[in-house]
Amino acid sequence: MNNQLSSWTDGAVKSTILDFVARVTDEGGPDFVPPAERIATFDNDGTLWCEQPLQVQFFFGRERLRIAAEKDPTLKEQQPFKAFFDHDMETIRNLGKEGLMEVAAFAHAGMTEDAFAKIARDWLAVARHPTLGCLFKELTYLPQMELLDFLQTHEFKIFIVTGGGIDLIRTLAAEVYGIPPERVVGSSVRTRFEIREGRGQLVKLAVINTFDDRQVKPQNIGLHIGRRPILAFGNSDGDLAMLRYVQTGPGPRLALLLHHDDAAREFAYDREFELSPLAEALDKADDYGLTVVSMKRDWRSVFADRLALAEAIAASKR
Amino acid sequence: MNNQLSSWTDGAVKSTILDFVARVTDEGGPDFVPPAERIATFDNDGTLWCEQPLQVQFFFGRERLRIAAEKDPTLKEQQPFKAFFDHDMETIRNLGKEGLMEVAAFAHAGMTEDAFAKIARDWLAVARHPTLGCLFKELTYLPQMELLDFLQTHEFKIFIVTGGGIDLIRTLAAEVYGIPPERVVGSSVRTRFEIREGRGQLVKLAVINTFDDRQVKPQNIGLHIGRRPILAFGNSDGDLAMLRYVQTGPGPRLALLLHHDDAAREFAYDREFELSPLAEALDKADDYGLTVVSMKRDWRSVFADRLALAEAIAASKR
Repeated sequence: MNNQLSSWTDGAVKSTILDFVARVTDEGGPDFVPPAERIATFDNDGTLWCEQPLQVQFFFGRERLRIAAEKDPTLKEQQPFKAFFDHDMETIRNLGKEGLMEVAAFAHAGMTEDAFAKIARDWLAVARHPTLGCLFKELTYLPQMELLDFLQTHEFKIFIVTGGGIDLIRTLAAEVYGIPPERVVGSSVRTRFEIREGRGQLVKLAVINTFDDRQVKPQNIGLHIGRRPILAFGNSDGDLAMLRYVQTGPGPRLALLLHHDDAAREFAYDREFELSPLAEALDKADDYGLTVVSMKRDWRSVFADRLALAEAIAASKR
Repeated sequence: MNNQLSSWTDGAVKSTILDFVARVTDEGGPDFVPPAERIATFDNDGTLWCEQPLQVQFFFGRERLRIAAEKDPTLKEQQPFKAFFDHDMETIRNLGKEGLMEVAAFAHAGMTEDAFAKIARDWLAVARHPTLGCLFKELTYLPQMELLDFLQTHEFKIFIVTGGGIDLIRTLAAEVYGIPPERVVGSSVRTRFEIREGRGQLVKLAVINTFDDRQVKPQNIGLHIGRRPILAFGNSDGDLAMLRYVQTGPGPRLALLLHHDDAAREFAYDREFELSPLAEALDKADDYGLTVVSMKRDWRSVFADRLALAEAIAASKR
């Protein structure tokens, strides 16, 4: 079998995935699912790429705040912005993911979608992880890239369902995963349509439209996709509602939960990561029918450029 | 040229469409657009199918109210529901499209998406137009079905952007247009995710999430599609913001406006249709760079089964 998840360790989890895909694509079989219904939803941060020490949105938002402060230096003295300038991680973590999203919404208010797209593209082209040194876009997990490929080869439609800002992740997804913008569902701000200098523009407002986490994930799947996926992959309690929504549907189902238990090659964390804890989903995985993927046990490689990153990760912990 | 819009009359409008598609698909040419960016958005009611005397949502909502009144007969005495039982068209029209959407939201509150999907499918399979006698799903315009095919053959991605209820139109779009649910953007209610009898369900609430009309159309295109379309087709002022959003982008653009000016073969109406008037878009079509499609002049046929429908339409006006 060529290119069948070669970065996945042979074992129960890999067999479960291969068996599931074989069953739903077996045209004569009892579990056959027509291609149009082969919807798979993936969380992004911590599922498709590294989210430590914080999700990429944080670093993007901080950069935007830095630029905003060039025009209005008083931002540096106002909370919650002050915390970003002071690297006051405790205050930042206490904001929670939704609080971070509000800061991001503030930082982009008044910007057109065209301007935002350019800024996001330019930033992702050069932005580097603060401790690992590599570009953020190099932090994707090799086994997951293989899985996306494998599913697409078998006519699955992949959607990313992320707590991250929808427009930032769309920029990333198109370039890094080859997933088009309309297949990214995420947190969003409200926009206003206006004609500026003869051109119709969507202008971002400082108002959260949706914070795409926990029960909002299945709600947004309903709104954007309009069909219950048959496969989902997440890594935190923020994904649990989506995983259960997928797992409890009729017919064949696969709900996968990535456990970051690999301190040597990546990071080991679950319930103590306040911004995106993994506790209930892990504790009740059996009850809920979730397949737990152990990074340590089930992945032969973690990153594509694994030697360089392994060294950087080791160095970052010294 | 085989199957190139054979129900479209040869002339300026047909040439504009053929020329546009030839230019954006000419790989060596200056106006080439890669397939991923060939996004086309179509309004539904009055653009892809007949919306007279009222949009299909009205008839669906009325049927749902009738069923609700079997449990709670007092609905028949309460406005605005009373108007539906009394066929009091003046009150109904005065509710406006958004008011109609609120009645629909009321009628479906508490229902799961699975239950709704079944009801919508069952209804569309048998529901007949009140005066024309045919099934609603037979009311699609033949030239538009050819245009959807033609664009898809040229690797356009088609999205429907409708003021109609997103879940009802998704049911229709999959069956009648072959467009998958995730490519339908429409009016929606908020939902709540809950586990009912061990199954994760999205439950409809009686709260409008978005009324997808006028400036909300480009806003929802930004949210759902995340990319400015290069082609749009509408038929009312409710589509004008979407048409201008599309027409004022950079590069090649085509914004089409269907004018219902064919009293003999369909209906002739524009600014006097209160629920979905066409006035500004028609008056300023030249200023805004919109291509007006005259049903009378530009369509050789209107409906697929045109003889039967022509008779029915004539009879309905007697």
